[in-house]
Amino acid sequence: MGKQTSRMDKIVALCKRRGFIFQSSEIYGGIGGFWDYGPLGVELKRNLKEAWWRDMVTGHDDTSVPDGAPVPYAMVGLDTSIVMHPQVWKVSGHYDMFSDLLVDCRAEGCKARFRADHISNARCPLKPSKRPGEHEACDLTEPREFNLMFKTYVGALVDPVSEAYLRPETAQGIFTNFKNVLSTARVKLPFGIAQIGKSFRNEITPRHFTFRSREFEQMEIEFFCRSAESPAWYAYWRDRRHAWYTALGLGSERLRLRDHGAEELSHYSCGTADIEYAFPFLEAGEFGELEGIAHRGDFDLRSHMEGKLVRAGDGFEVERDGEGRPRHAGSGKDLSYFDEETGERLTPHVIEPSAGADRAALAFLCEAYCEDEIPDEKGSPQPRVVLKLHPRLAPVKAAVFPLVRKDGMPQRAVDIYRELKRWWNVYYDEKGSIGRRYRRQDESGTPFCITVDQQTLNDGSVTVRERDSTEQTRVAGREITAFLRERLGYV
Amino acid sequence: MGKQTSRMDKIVALCKRRGFIFQSSEIYGGIGGFWDYGPLGVELKRNLKEAWWRDMVTGHDDTSVPDGAPVPYAMVGLDTSIVMHPQVWKVSGHYDMFSDLLVDCRAEGCKARFRADHISNARCPLKPSKRPGEHEACDLTEPREFNLMFKTYVGALVDPVSEAYLRPETAQGIFTNFKNVLSTARVKLPFGIAQIGKSFRNEITPRHFTFRSREFEQMEIEFFCRSAESPAWYAYWRDRRHAWYTALGLGSERLRLRDHGAEELSHYSCGTADIEYAFPFLEAGEFGELEGIAHRGDFDLRSHMEGKLVRAGDGFEVERDGEGRPRHAGSGKDLSYFDEETGERLTPHVIEPSAGADRAALAFLCEAYCEDEIPDEKGSPQPRVVLKLHPRLAPVKAAVFPLVRKDGMPQRAVDIYRELKRWWNVYYDEKGSIGRRYRRQDESGTPFCITVDQQTLNDGSVTVRERDSTEQTRVAGREITAFLRERLGYV
Repeated sequence: MGKQTSRMDKIVALCKRRGFIFQSSEIYGGIGGFWDYGPLGVELKRNLKEAWWRDMVTGHDDTSVPDGAPVPYAMVGLDTSIVMHPQVWKVSGHYDMFSDLLVDCRAEGCKARFRADHISNARCPLKPSKRPGEHEACDLTEPREFNLMFKTYVGALVDPVSEAYLRPETAQGIFTNFKNVLSTARVKLPFGIAQIGKSFRNEITPRHFTFRSREFEQMEIEFFCRSAESPAWYAYWRDRRHAWYTALGLGSERLRLRDHGAEELSHYSCGTADIEYAFPFLEAGEFGELEGIAHRGDFDLRSHMEGKLVRAGDGFEVERDGEGRPRHAGSGKDLSYFDEETGERLTPHVIEPSAGADRAALAFLCEAYCEDEIPDEKGSPQPRVVLKLHPRLAPVKAAVFPLVRKDGMPQRAVDIYRELKRWWNVYYDEKGSIGRRYRRQDESGTPFCITVDQQTLNDGSVTVRERDSTEQTRVAGREITAFLRERLGYV
Repeated sequence: MGKQTSRMDKIVALCKRRGFIFQSSEIYGGIGGFWDYGPLGVELKRNLKEAWWRDMVTGHDDTSVPDGAPVPYAMVGLDTSIVMHPQVWKVSGHYDMFSDLLVDCRAEGCKARFRADHISNARCPLKPSKRPGEHEACDLTEPREFNLMFKTYVGALVDPVSEAYLRPETAQGIFTNFKNVLSTARVKLPFGIAQIGKSFRNEITPRHFTFRSREFEQMEIEFFCRSAESPAWYAYWRDRRHAWYTALGLGSERLRLRDHGAEELSHYSCGTADIEYAFPFLEAGEFGELEGIAHRGDFDLRSHMEGKLVRAGDGFEVERDGEGRPRHAGSGKDLSYFDEETGERLTPHVIEPSAGADRAALAFLCEAYCEDEIPDEKGSPQPRVVLKLHPRLAPVKAAVFPLVRKDGMPQRAVDIYRELKRWWNVYYDEKGSIGRRYRRQDESGTPFCITVDQQTLNDGSVTVRERDSTEQTRVAGREITAFLRERLGYV
């Protein structure tokens, strides 16, 4: 535990020191659960989202069958608003159910708040050896309901008619546009709709750096298919999404795919799995969720047609008030799909791979953080901190250094910098010892450092130093772009 | 007016029909002032934001002097939270001043709401020939203040201590991180910080499609420089930003750069300019704002150090309460800059180019919308609708069609599609007549259509049709990628 915490502290310190992540509104003492991405962090997160969008949407080939998929499929994107019609959340169930039960302690000098379902593992702030309620001063309230959706008012009046919510997930923006996509994008079942965007949850106890924050960014896919084929698609997405993290560098022991046990499954679901990562802030053996892949059946589209659903026997039915009207009415719009192959109308079933962009960024940062020893200029071992980020994710792809600030080296280095900058985010640095310049780029996760030295002035060649191995290769000047392109891959 | 409105109606209809822009929560009747981007719209907006980020941030060369700039400068990015500490908005002045005065009509059957400063141009809903207040039934309230910031509550309690706001601009996230950037990004004056992100304003009368919406995305730069050099930097940014829109295709007559007159300027400002576009929903001769470039002096950094400022004589001073304390206290943190060149501490001055991503997207759509006549397969003139979007902005860069669905053409077309898809967002379509396939891509703004025909099977060459001219060129199979790369430029 001590060692783990200390590793996390170092990662948080690096994030601040190098400009990856800052506390929001830090000069005003911060605001709990909100974070800002600094100059390096914004590039990391942009690269991460771009990798997801390219791999899932624009780079997807809808004319071929991907590994493990039953048939070819189409994938399109959306970008829907954060504030939606409030009925969306009543029908989806978030308004009624997306809430925590909270217990407050009224004791003088305590005033602590606990989630009712966490209280048996919590500690009394006044006497940490005891649980809340066990100390004589404890004065706990009954559990009280608290909605995790941030509420606001749209329009000029602060009254119930104007109430609206910040979306707690991007998914509903996809379901409400299902018909619009069907009628404009020429897609046929099976197909997916993808979206990246901010969501908000008023977490009671935001914690673990950016892991549990109140404002966060999601990368969600709703994949629509025929009911009979949905188990095969569930298996496909479960494996595909796991492989995506692995390909971008998350280690196999710290990453795991955990299928929910039968007792955790909704009975309409043929499967739900979480992709989890052993974050360093967790106890040994514990994992934190990066992404959930859920088989949602036709629950969402049906709700938006008919009204909020509740369990009934083996299935669901519309929840009704005393007069038989839906408690929360659906849109009444037809969100079914006409299947040309069978001539039937059907309500598609849905597989939902739902990922957190901030959690993924944090996992990649944690995985990349290394301390090792490398020889300095004189060959003596020196400790260093290095972020071994995948080249696609690295904020800066290469740095260009003139060895000294004279003899035409800076100009030569600038020429190379400009050539590379046509293609990638590249950094130029002519200040400080070459060793310090390397270390700075190691901490930034920059895969390659290119040094212009005396030999460059003679024959045009440069030294390319690889971040992880620190190996240096002599590369001819005109081949640098091709050399980097090969090693960076498509970035 | 009739013709103008009709053109706008056609553009809105195209946006819906082709999947560029949908009304948010449309199946529930919509929610005023919120919009969703569909499968083509999300790509257009992504391309627009990527062009801005690349041109302003990652592609910016900080070792050279750009045209018109006094010296080289650095540019870094940020991505800050939408919900910030509420004190930020008290200090910035938004809490006190970012409000409209509203007048309601209490008359039965009216209940209309007017902005107090618009009432002299408004019409009475009950009798449109009269102004509000002139009809005998009118029953107007006194003007009442209404804050344009959306309010919410962070944490479990709904009380004043928990109040927070959705940011009405991204700029304050930059100012509050000024010191964090200084201490992590190794930048020296002059330098810029750029951010793209959503902002929210509870507009009384959202209108004109996405032009005035309640949720919108900004692309903002705060450029920090020495006071004496700020007029030159203001001139630079004013011209640079205007040129950016022109380079991406906004026509010179419909785009204008309007310097604010002396009477519009804050007295501390040496200049403010708006980049404006003659949107088709406006009356002839009217323009709508795309971007403002403002000289803001040291107002923002000073406020966040000292507290909310008010005018005093020729300058500003901290607004104080009866006991001499700042009415809204600043952070008390030192946001000054130590100038190594002069050995002095100074508070940088700021030039702010602040652009609306949704307004820019709308302007590019409006500018691109054309109706012309082209010959059909038999040479007869046929009307068509075409979006002449710049290739960097076009959602789809090329479409690949087999002429017929037999004879191995589809397979050949798929091979070409896959090769091109490595580099660009490319669409494959084998359904319908070739003419209809062209028209569909014209409406989507796709710059190139590539047709695989009988000759392709013989010699590998394909027909490339250019969207705007409809000219067709025969290109050898192995040269298609290079052909497109040259014409698409860096996209």
